Amino acid sequence: MTKKAVILLSGGLDSATVLALAKSEEYEIYAISFSYGQRHNVELDKAREIAKSANVTEHKIVEIDLRAFGGSALTDDIAVPKSDNVDDINDEIPVTYVPARNLIFLSYALGYAETLQSQNIFIGVNALDYSGYPDCRPDFIKSFEQTANFATAAGIGDKKFTIHTPLMEKTKAEIIKLGLELGVDYSKTLSCYDPIDGDKPCGHCDSCLLRNKGFSENRMTDPSI
Amino acid sequence: MTKKAVILLSGGLDSATVLALAKSEEYEIYAISFSYGQRHNVELDKAREIAKSANVTEHKIVEIDLRAFGGSALTDDIAVPKSDNVDDINDEIPVTYVPARNLIFLSYALGYAETLQSQNIFIGVNALDYSGYPDCRPDFIKSFEQTANFATAAGIGDKKFTIHTPLMEKTKAEIIKLGLELGVDYSKTLSCYDPIDGDKPCGHCDSCLLRNKGFSENRMTDPSI
Repeated sequence: MTKKAVILLSGGLDSATVLALAKSEEYEIYAISFSYGQRHNVELDKAREIAKSANVTEHKIVEIDLRAFGGSALTDDIAVPKSDNVDDINDEIPVTYVPARNLIFLSYALGYAETLQSQNIFIGVNALDYSGYPDCRPDFIKSFEQTANFATAAGIGDKKFTIHTPLMEKTKAEIIKLGLELGVDYSKTLSCYDPIDGDKPCGHCDSCLLRNKGFSENRMTDPSI
Repeated sequence: MTKKAVILLSGGLDSATVLALAKSEEYEIYAISFSYGQRHNVELDKAREIAKSANVTEHKIVEIDLRAFGGSALTDDIAVPKSDNVDDINDEIPVTYVPARNLIFLSYALGYAETLQSQNIFIGVNALDYSGYPDCRPDFIKSFEQTANFATAAGIGDKKFTIHTPLMEKTKAEIIKLGLELGVDYSKTLSCYDPIDGDKPCGHCDSCLLRNKGFSENRMTDPSI
């Protein structure tokens, strides 16, 4: 019997790698992406392309409006912080943090998984080379997994949900190395929080800085540029 | 300083009572309702009316599409179960269960609360006279509260969130008694899962049966009929 997996697919480097990994483990892939009023909405085109190349069984794009609450540089008219130096990324939570975003995304993924009778949800969070968001840490994921099993008809039975986070303890360089081994075409991914002319990476937001560091540690240039 | 509270307001009997209770405890009220493709969409008109009468500071109605996943009699073309006898409601999870619904609702409420710098979320779940939904039980709420504090920038600091469930251990009759003491106008509320002609309670779904039992135990008839 095929194992079904729901994969949170953003169109960025991490989730593209997770998708390839789940495929290599012979899961049947159901991808889910969100149109949430993000200024880097072009990532959804990338998500569509990645899902199509990977020949996923289904790709749902759910419209949700996180702008209703505001309070983030990713959804509001607040400047995305820029720098020339990856070491400027510190432990503080940046203004690109979107309140409760990953919790909302995972909650939808859970409803989707339950409907599909799938017990497996994959998310490309990592807690090493990241921006310091609280909802990317192992404690959050572990707690969500418990909540998911209390929240659902499936979870209170014997069909427990697992939230898979295969990238959690990897550096960006290690993620890229893994993805290249799995044949991920990173030219199709976009990680930038604030793309120029719609789809060119700015090169200076946290996400660009971490991505560039990852490729340069693999002694290569970013194929998406 | 005023305490702010986010209240999940459905337009039904329970959440109207919770709103009145939070007001009596001098919270400043921010109500949130969801248009999620429910067949009893008229409850949103009720929610608007209740919010207006209570003079809330803000009432957000968030559009989300739970029909995208399907699998529930509340959102799909599946018949809502009917009966003449409240004792027919058993421990099984009914087809009116919507996968991950309360988790998704609470996750939005959390994002809203964090943006408002509020630490208080009120939800009118109860685990006595209810339909047996997993996401109404104390274990779920307790686990969600922990997850909320891991998920957010506010929660990992010293501004911990509390999920208030003042109705959890009350029977429907006790809830109605409390609401009447607080001056709730139950003629403005609608609990039915499958209203006739848009806004008349069917009288036979689980929600109608429990509501009718609550009023009759208070020796009165439902003022909304």
